[in-house]
Amino acid sequence: MSDLPKAIHLREVGPREGLQFEKRVVATADKVRLVDALSETGVREIEFASFVSPKWVPQMADAEAWTAGIRKAPGVQYEGIWLNLQGFERALKLRDVLTLRPSFAVPASSTFWKKNANRTIEEQLEQLPAYVAAYRAAGFARLTLTVGAAWGCNYEGAILPERVVALLEEAQARAAELGMPVGKIGLMDTMGWANPLAIKRLVGLVRDRWPDLLLYLHLHDTRGTGIANFVAALEMGVTEFDTAVGGMGGCPFAEHKGAAGNVCSEDAVFICQEMGVATGIDLDRLIEAAQLAEQLLGTDLPGKVKRGGNLARYRARAAVG
Amino acid sequence: MSDLPKAIHLREVGPREGLQFEKRVVATADKVRLVDALSETGVREIEFASFVSPKWVPQMADAEAWTAGIRKAPGVQYEGIWLNLQGFERALKLRDVLTLRPSFAVPASSTFWKKNANRTIEEQLEQLPAYVAAYRAAGFARLTLTVGAAWGCNYEGAILPERVVALLEEAQARAAELGMPVGKIGLMDTMGWANPLAIKRLVGLVRDRWPDLLLYLHLHDTRGTGIANFVAALEMGVTEFDTAVGGMGGCPFAEHKGAAGNVCSEDAVFICQEMGVATGIDLDRLIEAAQLAEQLLGTDLPGKVKRGGNLARYRARAAVG
Repeated sequence: MSDLPKAIHLREVGPREGLQFEKRVVATADKVRLVDALSETGVREIEFASFVSPKWVPQMADAEAWTAGIRKAPGVQYEGIWLNLQGFERALKLRDVLTLRPSFAVPASSTFWKKNANRTIEEQLEQLPAYVAAYRAAGFARLTLTVGAAWGCNYEGAILPERVVALLEEAQARAAELGMPVGKIGLMDTMGWANPLAIKRLVGLVRDRWPDLLLYLHLHDTRGTGIANFVAALEMGVTEFDTAVGGMGGCPFAEHKGAAGNVCSEDAVFICQEMGVATGIDLDRLIEAAQLAEQLLGTDLPGKVKRGGNLARYRARAAVG
Repeated sequence: MSDLPKAIHLREVGPREGLQFEKRVVATADKVRLVDALSETGVREIEFASFVSPKWVPQMADAEAWTAGIRKAPGVQYEGIWLNLQGFERALKLRDVLTLRPSFAVPASSTFWKKNANRTIEEQLEQLPAYVAAYRAAGFARLTLTVGAAWGCNYEGAILPERVVALLEEAQARAAELGMPVGKIGLMDTMGWANPLAIKRLVGLVRDRWPDLLLYLHLHDTRGTGIANFVAALEMGVTEFDTAVGGMGGCPFAEHKGAAGNVCSEDAVFICQEMGVATGIDLDRLIEAAQLAEQLLGTDLPGKVKRGGNLARYRARAAVG
């Protein structure tokens, strides 16, 4: 008995977030193995490739080869990201394999976005007409807006929820002028600034302002609040999240060396299982995929349930006696 | 603005939980250093020694020497535990240093308690008269009841909250017959079976049944639910918790090799800081104590904020510009 959603949708972003900043070179064949293992878990959406410059992210230079290598499972969407339209054009060529998401970044911090994409917020918003044109040419009718650093920024400090709403309103108005309505909003806690109260505050404001738009969250566990933030969002009725197998991801910022990555997929699936929230994912298979990721990276990943053990198995054993 | 408590009390149990099952031998002088570092953090209660048989727990053979070595800070209580009355008699001799807690274990699972203390639940309850006599002789007027495996047991499966309430009623009735009222209840998620809904269910039942008794929780992060369970308990108004610096603790059960330990003290202090719940603890000093614990153990500990960084510092820096 709870007010939590009956079912939620988890988008697996571990292969993309986790392999992006790894010092260790992981062979393309191993990257393919990881995506293929995830394809067998019941996850319905897997983001893996980054179509970014190999000069900045050499780990993603094999984005095309990786995409070509995966074994597509029925009912699973395969995805990549881009930070500019050259990247989108690369992804577009792989449309027979990839599902493209027409998303546009609306960073809540200029300092962060200068470091990430070498543009201020205003400079980013000025990119919108070109994005809308490219997305329209590719056949998309609705835009997804993603707000980076939506709860705070290591450089600029806390971000007020009212500021996030104002930014989204600005971007939505510009998109409307360009004739492309917004269909979905993503709120990203890029640097791990959120806490359960702050989650409820911002999600509440965004829901009140845009009750008909789809909403998803992308949460980082940089300071150990990840799973509590995830539960707070469930309590607010959020039904879509990005998570990363094993808790892969880390953080590209130098001062966060060793910090935890995204909210861990199998820990999220586990807590959902325990609270009666369906994910459609086979927890045991997902734990196996997390163990494979540890093996490929040659390091322990921060997820907990892969060591603590799936309680469903303990309950089944106890029932047998 | 929230319904969370304005202030809570954290009992630091890392030195006791964390050093109990360590394979690596930590020198008594180093154990003293860890307790002394914790004494400087604002923590007001530190549990460190186990007065248990050195045959079973050789890591705690130096309980007396460790106790003799610490530098007592004003306003801080220093504590140990025991699993039988011989242990209590050892602790009693150190009463000039230690604050003794007149607690009695009411395990929710016989199989667990057979493995932990070689007694069934009924055999444990039969110990009560001897405990009450010893505690009365030592000048105690009220008993603390602690329920181990209160949410579930790896051997017996899920534990119904109604069963926990019935066990507490039974123990309370027996204590009343012996003329010693119960003053406090501790609920322990010994093997990491709880989830936020189950926390709310059991805490709600216990609060309804014993509105005037003090209540504290001891939560493990075995499967990654620890901090979410902690927040769920805050939402229920619980104001006292055991936590472990660095997330030390692990789990003594073989099949949990590598599993996470108690809810991490500094991650709990951090999430409280972010949500406006006072702990009286200096987070930066506590992070330093966690780093010292890692150094003494020669291993990474699972706590997150010690790597992610205290946001109070980022906010201060951002404010300066």
